[in-house]
Amino acid sequence: MAEDGGLPGPVLVVGAGLLGTSIGLALTARGVEVWLSDLNPEHVRTASGLGAGTPLRDGASPSLVVVAVPPDAVGARVHEALEAHPGAVVTDVGSVKSEPLEHLRRHLPDDADSGSLARYVGSHPMAGSERSGPLAASAALFDGRPWAVTPHERAAEPSVQAVLGLVALCGASPVVLSPAEHDQAVARISHLPHLMAVLVAGRLAGASAEHLALSGQGVRDVTRIAAGDPRLWEQIIGANAPAVLTLLEEVQDRLATLHAAVSGSDRAALGTLLAEGVAGTRAIPGKHGGPVRPTGSVYVAVPDHPGELARLFADAGEARVNVEDIHIDHDPGRPVGQVELVVDVELADQLCEALVGRGWTAYR
Amino acid sequence: MAEDGGLPGPVLVVGAGLLGTSIGLALTARGVEVWLSDLNPEHVRTASGLGAGTPLRDGASPSLVVVAVPPDAVGARVHEALEAHPGAVVTDVGSVKSEPLEHLRRHLPDDADSGSLARYVGSHPMAGSERSGPLAASAALFDGRPWAVTPHERAAEPSVQAVLGLVALCGASPVVLSPAEHDQAVARISHLPHLMAVLVAGRLAGASAEHLALSGQGVRDVTRIAAGDPRLWEQIIGANAPAVLTLLEEVQDRLATLHAAVSGSDRAALGTLLAEGVAGTRAIPGKHGGPVRPTGSVYVAVPDHPGELARLFADAGEARVNVEDIHIDHDPGRPVGQVELVVDVELADQLCEALVGRGWTAYR
Repeated sequence: MAEDGGLPGPVLVVGAGLLGTSIGLALTARGVEVWLSDLNPEHVRTASGLGAGTPLRDGASPSLVVVAVPPDAVGARVHEALEAHPGAVVTDVGSVKSEPLEHLRRHLPDDADSGSLARYVGSHPMAGSERSGPLAASAALFDGRPWAVTPHERAAEPSVQAVLGLVALCGASPVVLSPAEHDQAVARISHLPHLMAVLVAGRLAGASAEHLALSGQGVRDVTRIAAGDPRLWEQIIGANAPAVLTLLEEVQDRLATLHAAVSGSDRAALGTLLAEGVAGTRAIPGKHGGPVRPTGSVYVAVPDHPGELARLFADAGEARVNVEDIHIDHDPGRPVGQVELVVDVELADQLCEALVGRGWTAYR
Repeated sequence: MAEDGGLPGPVLVVGAGLLGTSIGLALTARGVEVWLSDLNPEHVRTASGLGAGTPLRDGASPSLVVVAVPPDAVGARVHEALEAHPGAVVTDVGSVKSEPLEHLRRHLPDDADSGSLARYVGSHPMAGSERSGPLAASAALFDGRPWAVTPHERAAEPSVQAVLGLVALCGASPVVLSPAEHDQAVARISHLPHLMAVLVAGRLAGASAEHLALSGQGVRDVTRIAAGDPRLWEQIIGANAPAVLTLLEEVQDRLATLHAAVSGSDRAALGTLLAEGVAGTRAIPGKHGGPVRPTGSVYVAVPDHPGELARLFADAGEARVNVEDIHIDHDPGRPVGQVELVVDVELADQLCEALVGRGWTAYR
């Protein structure tokens, strides 16, 4: 399997939840032997029933162990795996990478243990689902998604190659970063956005129904991720506290600047902050990692019943225009949805005319 | 036209931009005579060319004047309209309602002017487009959208009825609020979310490409509205400073609590904040103003070329499942899009099975 990065197999997956079972399904689909373990035997039964692997037998010796447990338990489970399977490379799929490494450094302190530490390389697939548990798993979960691989300075090259092989077999795109860089990156592109969405959503909880009646797509987009499981996010934020605190302090600083600009009617300072935001939206990579191409939107009124979206996209397809993104505005007034089709700006007028020509109420 | 709320017409639209021209198009489509004026004669030529009305003639006396100019100019244009057209009801469509009213109270101070003030009722359609100017206009822009109508205590009832008639003719859903309530509502559901999106996006501007490579749909959703025109938002935020400052201070307070919880590893306090966010996302009204129904997501891998989304929605339509919302995740790894179909949670498994049965890579 050299073309896949040299993953030797068999693989032990510790933790048969959403991620662990999905990895098991992806690997077995590629012909890799997978063993499963979980503190909850019901999860192992379910995952193996789905074809994600077979229950771990005593004395089995895997060549790779994938630890897929909640953030709080990652360090301890990785440590156990390194000691229980001295011939195996060990990785984890947790959302934070420095804390488990620190746990290992505390528990594998002396040179005699450096061999164990060399067998550990952390990783983090940027994939998930709003559901959890083995029944939510899918072999396609990682398809084309970024998967961070985070070697520390004492990691052995064959260990790194084994984890890259895992990423390749799961169909993901590897992004190699140091553990500290990874944690700073996810603090910025995941943890801070989550916490800011939480603070905005928190301001809605007490608002009157008639005030909330004015809500549009903007506030829905900003707050959507704030619905995430608080118990999971407590662990993620708690494990990445240093990187998160640095960004929270940056935001506190900018918020103070913003407050001063608004209270002092300082339009120039306010404009500078707003322009920073525009620049930030352009910094996010576009589709397929390429530069963001300029897009334009076409708005269409769509009756809210089955088949109408199908008709709309069939007509858009006839126009030979590729839809880059979609937003549906939830319409408080009537059983009609407002659909925003985001397309290459060069093609927006053409799409709009084509849809109007086919009887849709569409405009730019 | 009593069934439309008694709008007498003819209507003068001051400012032939996106909103003014769209109102002109909606009214002319309903048979109302519309006159147009704009400091830029080119806008009037374009808007009347589109069929939004005819250029205002000297001495014409409208029964309703709709002021659709940038926020900074609303108060002065409304004042001019009240003096130039003593027989007309005057409204505006600005994003903020207290400031123009204060402007009028300063310039129409004594009882002799109370008659003029009684003819003014502010309003605010919750509709727009990322484009501006008359060429972006559409008679369908307000279709089913909320449109706030904000009578002050000295407004005459016939004036309120005339503005409600305008809302009805534009096909929008009226939401009646006091000017102060309106400004508090939009500060909460529009201005604060915009500013928080700006602060999150601002943290991305300087980030390294390999850190940004880990970006998923979450950060894209949170920051999307931060791309809005800074010059417009300067005026909106500046005009609603008191309500915005109150909320910025609430956020500063919660941010300090959040910082203390993270730095002190206080999981309970962090969990309380996260739970507030979950509650807030549930407070936003669902489709058609009804309660939010529980939804589930089905994820589908879709080849990124024209016609594939059409095929997907045709197959979803065959399954007789109504798609409530859609998110497309931009896939850095390969020319395949990850499409999230949000449907009634009762129907998600059925849709997933139907799509898999039709050859799609779909999972929940």
